[in-house]
Amino acid sequence: MPAAIAAARRPFTNSAAPERLRAFLDSATFARPTLVLDIEKVAENYRALKAGLGKTHIHYAVKANPERAVLEALVAEGSRFDAASRQEIALCRAAGAQPQDISFGNTVKKPLDIAWAFAEGIDLFAADSAEELEKIAAHAPGTRVYIRFLVENSEADWPLSRKFGVPAEGVLELMDVAVVLGLRPVGISFHVGSQTRRAAMWRRVLEDVAKIWHAAVRKGHDLSLLNIGGGFPTYYGDPVEDPENYGRSVRGMVGELFGHVDYVMAEPGRGLVGNTGVIAAEVLLVARKRPSDIARWVTLDIGKFSGLAETMDEAIRYQIETTADGGEMGPCILAGPSCDSADVLYEKRPMQLPVALKAGDQVRILATGAYTTTYASIGFNGFPPLDVICI
Amino acid sequence: MPAAIAAARRPFTNSAAPERLRAFLDSATFARPTLVLDIEKVAENYRALKAGLGKTHIHYAVKANPERAVLEALVAEGSRFDAASRQEIALCRAAGAQPQDISFGNTVKKPLDIAWAFAEGIDLFAADSAEELEKIAAHAPGTRVYIRFLVENSEADWPLSRKFGVPAEGVLELMDVAVVLGLRPVGISFHVGSQTRRAAMWRRVLEDVAKIWHAAVRKGHDLSLLNIGGGFPTYYGDPVEDPENYGRSVRGMVGELFGHVDYVMAEPGRGLVGNTGVIAAEVLLVARKRPSDIARWVTLDIGKFSGLAETMDEAIRYQIETTADGGEMGPCILAGPSCDSADVLYEKRPMQLPVALKAGDQVRILATGAYTTTYASIGFNGFPPLDVICI
Repeated sequence: MPAAIAAARRPFTNSAAPERLRAFLDSATFARPTLVLDIEKVAENYRALKAGLGKTHIHYAVKANPERAVLEALVAEGSRFDAASRQEIALCRAAGAQPQDISFGNTVKKPLDIAWAFAEGIDLFAADSAEELEKIAAHAPGTRVYIRFLVENSEADWPLSRKFGVPAEGVLELMDVAVVLGLRPVGISFHVGSQTRRAAMWRRVLEDVAKIWHAAVRKGHDLSLLNIGGGFPTYYGDPVEDPENYGRSVRGMVGELFGHVDYVMAEPGRGLVGNTGVIAAEVLLVARKRPSDIARWVTLDIGKFSGLAETMDEAIRYQIETTADGGEMGPCILAGPSCDSADVLYEKRPMQLPVALKAGDQVRILATGAYTTTYASIGFNGFPPLDVICI
Repeated sequence: MPAAIAAARRPFTNSAAPERLRAFLDSATFARPTLVLDIEKVAENYRALKAGLGKTHIHYAVKANPERAVLEALVAEGSRFDAASRQEIALCRAAGAQPQDISFGNTVKKPLDIAWAFAEGIDLFAADSAEELEKIAAHAPGTRVYIRFLVENSEADWPLSRKFGVPAEGVLELMDVAVVLGLRPVGISFHVGSQTRRAAMWRRVLEDVAKIWHAAVRKGHDLSLLNIGGGFPTYYGDPVEDPENYGRSVRGMVGELFGHVDYVMAEPGRGLVGNTGVIAAEVLLVARKRPSDIARWVTLDIGKFSGLAETMDEAIRYQIETTADGGEMGPCILAGPSCDSADVLYEKRPMQLPVALKAGDQVRILATGAYTTTYASIGFNGFPPLDVICI
């Protein structure tokens, strides 16, 4: 029997993978790195967050995981959707979503895609510049738009760059521009930052947004839509609030700071699917570069270019289980399988992995349901994209 | 006529794109970001570098661009190949390469892939650890191996990380290990660093490698293969030596420092295909975030996740032409089309682009023949991978 297959039959002891996923993973073998997604768990996450968020409309951020089974499960739960592109809108429609339940949330869009979406029945678009409003006015005349505010006070684990949004004065200016262009500036959006672990971390941001909101209303804009974006966390090892309490706290702060708003929408992505997936992968090599090295190099058959792009700058730190768990641990530099020297996952903060770990051992990378499948390269170094199995 | 189509018909003035590519690009329109590859230019590059490198065997680094037409053109020129994976070996074989002309250069390989390659007739494998040698000995008994040396003195534009190779004393130890395992340790490999712009920058590295080479020979190892790796540059705006002179200089230094070596091999990737491609793309938006901002934000329909991964850390700086060229220039932050805040190409060192640039203008991204197509994600944000046209 080849070594790899033999190793595959060693058990994972004390796995922290969610129960249904664990049961499936324990019974299966995988020829290549595979994401196993628990679709029931997607629905459970939706219900928990929705219970907390109340009347807030959930628009699932499709980019987090556009797998058809995920979208269909969310359609069945009554979720709405936020799409980043024409292609994502088409995926939502194919999964059964209605056009009026889909927002086109990328602040930069191709003119032909705006026209296509508008013809499909999409009537809610994001913008953060006069130039984008001009494109929307030309290709989706009279439609509803919301203006994205640039948050300055993020406390997220992964604060976003300055790529999206305009500062406070810009929001008001763009609403005036929208009116001049014949559009309906119905509201404001923002993003508190990806993986904001506790609801309390939203307060300062919400206070900033509320100031602009009330200023816009005072200027005579008839605002009816508040898009609170994403930021809903998943569990990577540092404590996060449970979704129901988290949603309830955010909803409470929104009510307190904004008063009645006709349509509050949230765009969870990671928060709905992050903990619904586990990647099964394999150790290709454990080696020391020189006898004096403290950290071993551990190479997996999955890396930055085949699904784990969120390890860029070591931003997201996944929990990893191995079939060698149970004994003494030691520091490791974790790398992907490609010949690219940038394909190193964790080096600045080495990972603790079993001293007994060796080539052929199996690993489980937890909470990998978000931002893995579609990030994977089509074939860098010849390696195929991440395989996906939905259970 | 839609604005985007009208803009597509505006000419590029004074384009620096190579002539055949320019002629094709001038005559074509593209519905989405497209890499146009000049296959004749691949063959020309091969001939120029080969003229300089003389008897040195060129093993094209397939990972730089595994397009079938590229591989077939190189097979026709007599090139050999370096593969990073089983899949890349299969691509080379499908393009007509013989097994004895293919090296398996990834220092970390799956056991089953080693066995498969060996059965296919591949008999030259890379290693940089005792653990990898054990795998090779188990699955490709008696085969030839070379040991990768970790270069410490790179002067490259993109020095490689410490992911690959072992220090000097490790090279000798691993050769002894290989002998004990019944393998044939025939030589040493190294990598001077990607995009090493002048041949003179090789000298210090070659001197370090020669010391180990001669030490190994003194210890009784019968070395016959020196793999000088890649590092051959392409033109991104900073001067680079022409390939023939560059190759001749490197060959001269190798002869001077190593004396006669049965088989010297080089693994150019970027140097053979970088300047053979131009990406046609489009400006989606030009906007200022606030009136006081000096730099405008320019969003393209291609970004870090759809082909321009080498802009990571702003490492590779592409030259960009636009249909608005010719007038005053000003600083821009360049971004890709996705909703990912990390999808920013150049921000630390803003790019100079025309003040007149606007949405719908066409752009050409020069020297994008290497490390673009296969890096592209399968569908992040719903955007399709980079399209490729070979001329």
